[in-house]
Amino acid sequence: METKAQVLYDFTAEPGNNELSVREGETITLTNQNVGGGWIEAKNSRGEVGLVPEDYIETPLITPDNYKSHIDQTDQHCFSKMTSNGNDPWAVFDNNASGGVSNNWAAQPEGTETGKTSSNAWHSGGHVHPQAYQGAGAEDDEWDEEWDDVKSSGGYAESEAGEGGAINRGGAHVRIYTVFQGGEVGPVWAYPDYQLDCVVADPKKGSKMYGLKSYIEYQVTPTTTNKPVNHRYKHFDWLYERLLDKFGSAIPIPCLPDKQVTGRFEEEFIKMRMERLQGWMSRMCRHPVISSSEVFQLFLSYKDEKDWKTGKRKAEKDETVGVMIFSTIEPEGLPDLDLTEVEQKCEQFNRFTRAMDDGVKDLLTVGNEHWKRCTGPLPKEYQRIGKAFQNLSSVFTSSGYEGEAALTDALTAAGKTYEDIAQMVAEQPKKDLHFLMETNNEYKGLLGCFPDTIGVHKAAIEKVKEGDKLVATGKITTSEKTAMSKRASTMSYALQAEMNHFHSNRIYDYNRVMQQYLEQQVKFYEMIAEKLRNAHSQFTTM
Amino acid sequence: METKAQVLYDFTAEPGNNELSVREGETITLTNQNVGGGWIEAKNSRGEVGLVPEDYIETPLITPDNYKSHIDQTDQHCFSKMTSNGNDPWAVFDNNASGGVSNNWAAQPEGTETGKTSSNAWHSGGHVHPQAYQGAGAEDDEWDEEWDDVKSSGGYAESEAGEGGAINRGGAHVRIYTVFQGGEVGPVWAYPDYQLDCVVADPKKGSKMYGLKSYIEYQVTPTTTNKPVNHRYKHFDWLYERLLDKFGSAIPIPCLPDKQVTGRFEEEFIKMRMERLQGWMSRMCRHPVISSSEVFQLFLSYKDEKDWKTGKRKAEKDETVGVMIFSTIEPEGLPDLDLTEVEQKCEQFNRFTRAMDDGVKDLLTVGNEHWKRCTGPLPKEYQRIGKAFQNLSSVFTSSGYEGEAALTDALTAAGKTYEDIAQMVAEQPKKDLHFLMETNNEYKGLLGCFPDTIGVHKAAIEKVKEGDKLVATGKITTSEKTAMSKRASTMSYALQAEMNHFHSNRIYDYNRVMQQYLEQQVKFYEMIAEKLRNAHSQFTTM
Repeated sequence: METKAQVLYDFTAEPGNNELSVREGETITLTNQNVGGGWIEAKNSRGEVGLVPEDYIETPLITPDNYKSHIDQTDQHCFSKMTSNGNDPWAVFDNNASGGVSNNWAAQPEGTETGKTSSNAWHSGGHVHPQAYQGAGAEDDEWDEEWDDVKSSGGYAESEAGEGGAINRGGAHVRIYTVFQGGEVGPVWAYPDYQLDCVVADPKKGSKMYGLKSYIEYQVTPTTTNKPVNHRYKHFDWLYERLLDKFGSAIPIPCLPDKQVTGRFEEEFIKMRMERLQGWMSRMCRHPVISSSEVFQLFLSYKDEKDWKTGKRKAEKDETVGVMIFSTIEPEGLPDLDLTEVEQKCEQFNRFTRAMDDGVKDLLTVGNEHWKRCTGPLPKEYQRIGKAFQNLSSVFTSSGYEGEAALTDALTAAGKTYEDIAQMVAEQPKKDLHFLMETNNEYKGLLGCFPDTIGVHKAAIEKVKEGDKLVATGKITTSEKTAMSKRASTMSYALQAEMNHFHSNRIYDYNRVMQQYLEQQVKFYEMIAEKLRNAHSQFTTM
Repeated sequence: METKAQVLYDFTAEPGNNELSVREGETITLTNQNVGGGWIEAKNSRGEVGLVPEDYIETPLITPDNYKSHIDQTDQHCFSKMTSNGNDPWAVFDNNASGGVSNNWAAQPEGTETGKTSSNAWHSGGHVHPQAYQGAGAEDDEWDEEWDDVKSSGGYAESEAGEGGAINRGGAHVRIYTVFQGGEVGPVWAYPDYQLDCVVADPKKGSKMYGLKSYIEYQVTPTTTNKPVNHRYKHFDWLYERLLDKFGSAIPIPCLPDKQVTGRFEEEFIKMRMERLQGWMSRMCRHPVISSSEVFQLFLSYKDEKDWKTGKRKAEKDETVGVMIFSTIEPEGLPDLDLTEVEQKCEQFNRFTRAMDDGVKDLLTVGNEHWKRCTGPLPKEYQRIGKAFQNLSSVFTSSGYEGEAALTDALTAAGKTYEDIAQMVAEQPKKDLHFLMETNNEYKGLLGCFPDTIGVHKAAIEKVKEGDKLVATGKITTSEKTAMSKRASTMSYALQAEMNHFHSNRIYDYNRVMQQYLEQQVKFYEMIAEKLRNAHSQFTTM
């Protein structure tokens, strides 16, 4: 007998994963309830069969606890989305910057660092801690399962050069990130001698649960070890959550490419996601603080399954997260900044990132419209011009008049040229506008993180401002107040270093993308001119 | 005391003529009733003063006769519009070709040529004979007046080389137009050794009625005599009416450029009209029959005012008009065609001109849309792209980060480049699409004449078909029927010669205009590529 069940929540299948999209209220037939891993195989009314999360459907199998974990999973959003609550992320600065933020490292009396628990208070405004996503013991089983798959499909020998990373990871000490005076530009992070990068490539389809559930695994090869490791999208997502937890207060951690990005074809989708994961990873590699962090090194160059599992659990238990990160930042040889200066810098960066956010969004809007025109009405028009010439040519051919073959051939060629141009116009955005849009999209993501990062600083500044009152009412001692100011100064140096990092990357990225864009545009117009020159040469001079 | 009057009919002022546009029912103030020449100076409610035809306004001065003449004048339209009655001009062939056409040269018993009066019967379907426009004695006075103006503003000495033309004009003989066998293409007109052309240039403002009424006079210089003559638009219009009357049954006489073409600026309007008059005159010059006709020669190379006036009156009394023109056409050394062949040729030309009419109209539609896009949304988009780059550049300038001047300068330059491109895009249609459109517009006009020309032939064919019945019922003799067939054959030769003339001109015109179009398009795209290359070079490679 078939078991029917009602769908409780919308679920959108991830392409290429054997999943089935279902809508809330839909009735589906359960075709296999023994799939395991939290999945059930089901069939919808159109006869389509696929996997659906078991706790998305109304069956007696599901406990209330499971619901919660799965709802959290689907509710997980980009950091900036979480804190902004869907409103203008910049609005927090127009109102009371410290509103709703009550507890932070910079404002706490010395020695009362509370680590992870207190850092969570930062994620106000509807934030669900990412721990809810991948932390539970039951989920760990799934991870273990996967690692068996990875082992069977990938296979990686004992690392020879990976020892350095392992030592870092294994050590019990807390890594210190240094800020130096970097010449004219001011405070900068300490950059490594060798700039890390990695290549994300070779997406391969894997499967588990006896082939019922498939997934895409990407090969990630760091330029340091040159040894590839395999990662699924959910591993990238895990890394993102770890980095956001650990560095989000000091460093903008851009969202991963959309989980639900859909291409019309699976291949297109995978290619696009890979390209964006590559962009994200390269940006992370370029960051001196992130790239040298234990968790990032683990992701890029774990030796084996055991190494990964140990590192993973350790990373999840890391207590130096949230504002605690500032306790690991050391402004080397830099004098303490007074509050006015800290405030000015913060305001300046706020203004700049806000203005750039507007500028980038404007360019994206214009670019999107241009994309639409280039792939829609414009090529259609060139096609119609081409057809009109060819049509006239065939009318002329029917004239019965001798000796006009030269004209009709030329007119046909001109018509075909405009049809070619139509196609070129339609395909061009993929060759140039695409990269301009991708880069600006990346920057939009990065800039979207700044309100949160700057918000942390603003809140700290407000607390320091309240310091005198707290001293007067005997709530903190004078030396505790001095320590608060010093911490605000450290935060400001971190922000300045981060802004300088941002600026130098921005200059590099925009130079590169504009060069690429204009180079392709030149080629495009030159090719059109060349095609038209050919068409022109076919008309005879009289 | 001011005299007020009500406007009886809409009147649209011709630009640069000191005229005042008025609407039916509007009340105007008569400021000067003694202007003369059929005009009254009036002022509207907005205080604008100008000339209005006196019989367009309700005053006791106007007689019912005057009304008629003026209504005819404003009702005058292009020939094809007259016969089509506003419907599809091709429809006549889908219905009964001879319907409503009852009287023509080809169908008449030999020797009963009725000349002008009978030819008028061709202009069925609401046709008002152009004679109503400029024939009346009162109008002649105006012409005389004008000639005084022409004399004073232009001035032309006794012609030295004009004697040949004068002899032609003065002679009482009827000119015979010959059709030859022209090699592979079939029957052709006899072409002159020297191809006539003329230059329409140097538009000058003249005035009359003590400066109250102004007009534009164009200098027309034939390549034969190289002696300029002056003509106003109304003279061209007079020529058009004469040519239409005389040759319209055998040769498509395209309309003059619209009388009411309006440019936003007077200069633009005059330039546009001149360009189109030039196109029209060149086309007439290229035609062997038209260019050698007395009336055309008169227009191009009259010796003096007296010569002009004599020639003008003679032309208006010319009786070889309408279908009578075929009596002056001599197929030299060509055998009589049988009716089947005549009919086949006629059908073939009908199909071709109809198909070409569709093709030309399609190209015009596409071209119009492209024009709109090139002058509207497309440059706006390039402008917005340019602004977005420049905007980003100015945001970057505000970063306070040292050493990004190279990027911001380059980004500004790129932005300006796209603004330049916007302007280039907007101005380009005037440089290329314009001529493509003008040529196709000319052809649309020409092709619009063919239904009438072909209609004359179809009617003649139908009459010949009825010939046997007429012989049987004793209405015509057998030899009269033979003469009818012979005349149909002559008409067919004329049509074939005309089609061959049309084809050879068409091949020349389309080769020329496509070359011109593509050449300008190549330049356009090359210039864009060049500009973008410059913009590209300003970004520094890292």
